[in-house]
Amino acid sequence: MISSPANPKVKYVKRLQAERRFRRRERAFVVEGTRWLSELAQWPAQALLILCTEQWLNTAVSTPILQQIPAPMQVVSDELMRLMSDTETAPGALAVVKNTPQPLPERPSLLLILDAIANPGNLGTMLRTAAAAGVEGVLLAPGCVDATNPKVVRGGMGAHLRLPIHQVDWSQIEQLTGEMQTWIAAADGEQTYTAVNWTTPAALTIGNEARGPGQAAQAIADGRLTIPMHAATESLNAAVAAAVILFEAARQRRQRPNPKSKT
Amino acid sequence: MISSPANPKVKYVKRLQAERRFRRRERAFVVEGTRWLSELAQWPAQALLILCTEQWLNTAVSTPILQQIPAPMQVVSDELMRLMSDTETAPGALAVVKNTPQPLPERPSLLLILDAIANPGNLGTMLRTAAAAGVEGVLLAPGCVDATNPKVVRGGMGAHLRLPIHQVDWSQIEQLTGEMQTWIAAADGEQTYTAVNWTTPAALTIGNEARGPGQAAQAIADGRLTIPMHAATESLNAAVAAAVILFEAARQRRQRPNPKSKT
Repeated sequence: MISSPANPKVKYVKRLQAERRFRRRERAFVVEGTRWLSELAQWPAQALLILCTEQWLNTAVSTPILQQIPAPMQVVSDELMRLMSDTETAPGALAVVKNTPQPLPERPSLLLILDAIANPGNLGTMLRTAAAAGVEGVLLAPGCVDATNPKVVRGGMGAHLRLPIHQVDWSQIEQLTGEMQTWIAAADGEQTYTAVNWTTPAALTIGNEARGPGQAAQAIADGRLTIPMHAATESLNAAVAAAVILFEAARQRRQRPNPKSKT
Repeated sequence: MISSPANPKVKYVKRLQAERRFRRRERAFVVEGTRWLSELAQWPAQALLILCTEQWLNTAVSTPILQQIPAPMQVVSDELMRLMSDTETAPGALAVVKNTPQPLPERPSLLLILDAIANPGNLGTMLRTAAAAGVEGVLLAPGCVDATNPKVVRGGMGAHLRLPIHQVDWSQIEQLTGEMQTWIAAADGEQTYTAVNWTTPAALTIGNEARGPGQAAQAIADGRLTIPMHAATESLNAAVAAAVILFEAARQRRQRPNPKSKT
């Protein structure tokens, strides 16, 4: 059992948790907890290392996870697990995961563009929501919090493995969305989100929580969508607005499946 | 200017921020920041006290807020504001607000029932979403985090004033929802949320983030709703699930307004 904080693996994990640049250089990030490791078990080749406590190793849930993931595993002391964890209540296990995003589909029918999302919890929730709503790729525009930040990873609940998530600049976004209807969510948008035809290829942009979508986002947009609210003073959390619009797209697509590219 | 941490008003605010029992005894809670105070300005009689920094007092935003709110106002030092604030970046102003929830409408057409919601951020987001979606009352079942917890208040963004929010037990919930269709959101629900007719009086129950809805919630429910997701392994954050379902209700109600009671 590893019990020294000076152990190279422990130091490696701690540095991955703390430093964005190190995560980028290593092309790796850390996932925590049984639920995330169960997700990882579906993408076993992405796992690089598992560290767990003796107690977790003795639980029934650990067996199928460890059987499915061929990565090296080491037992660490409870104290080291607390030291490495980003959460207040340390998990029983964590894993180092390769950060090799899936490629975007050649003709995506639904993309989510995130413009300078600042709150890691919001970004994590949006990634999780996007995966569940059938989004085929997430484009992170400049200014977004790092998608492999521990809080984003925690909120994403597996989305990092299932969804192509790509950091891009606005010229790349313009190119990728060239043939799609591109919408911006905006409190004062001129079109109701339910009036849009979501069965053709579409991209949705969600802007910064405080400032809303920036100029570059506005420049490539075909229109601005509003969510009608009960009273004029109301507003929605950015992750909630994304969810409401993306699941309206999913609803329409269930009724009229197989959206085709415009060309 | 107040600059002593021993000042009774400062101690009062600090205790309100820290102690649920004290908030309940005083029937008061604390709201922070210009945005919340702008909401409060629409319900001026609810304000009991405003504390602000000298810098905030010199901003243009402070004038209309202070003109609309007749409560006593006192300037405090920046350091005291930091001491009283629940946020990392202290606001320029905060207010003590009366906790006197609005009465529920006699025949509500849309209620949200929250069953043992544990995460304050989730609860705050759900209250904000409910207000925006046209929910007419929120029933907090036993086990929910306190709705006047500083983090819930922050997430609620004014919902505490606009929405009747009532702490109730399950027998009261059963009575209040007697004439309504009562639904539970459940990952393995048998009915798709979009297949429900939301134009008649309805109540939606959202369960605990980890355990889902409890037995008491199941006992009074007419059915369990599922949100179809892209892959079987997906799940949604509780606040996102609530938003998706409540805005589907809002969508249907825009198309067929004036839901009538069943009796």
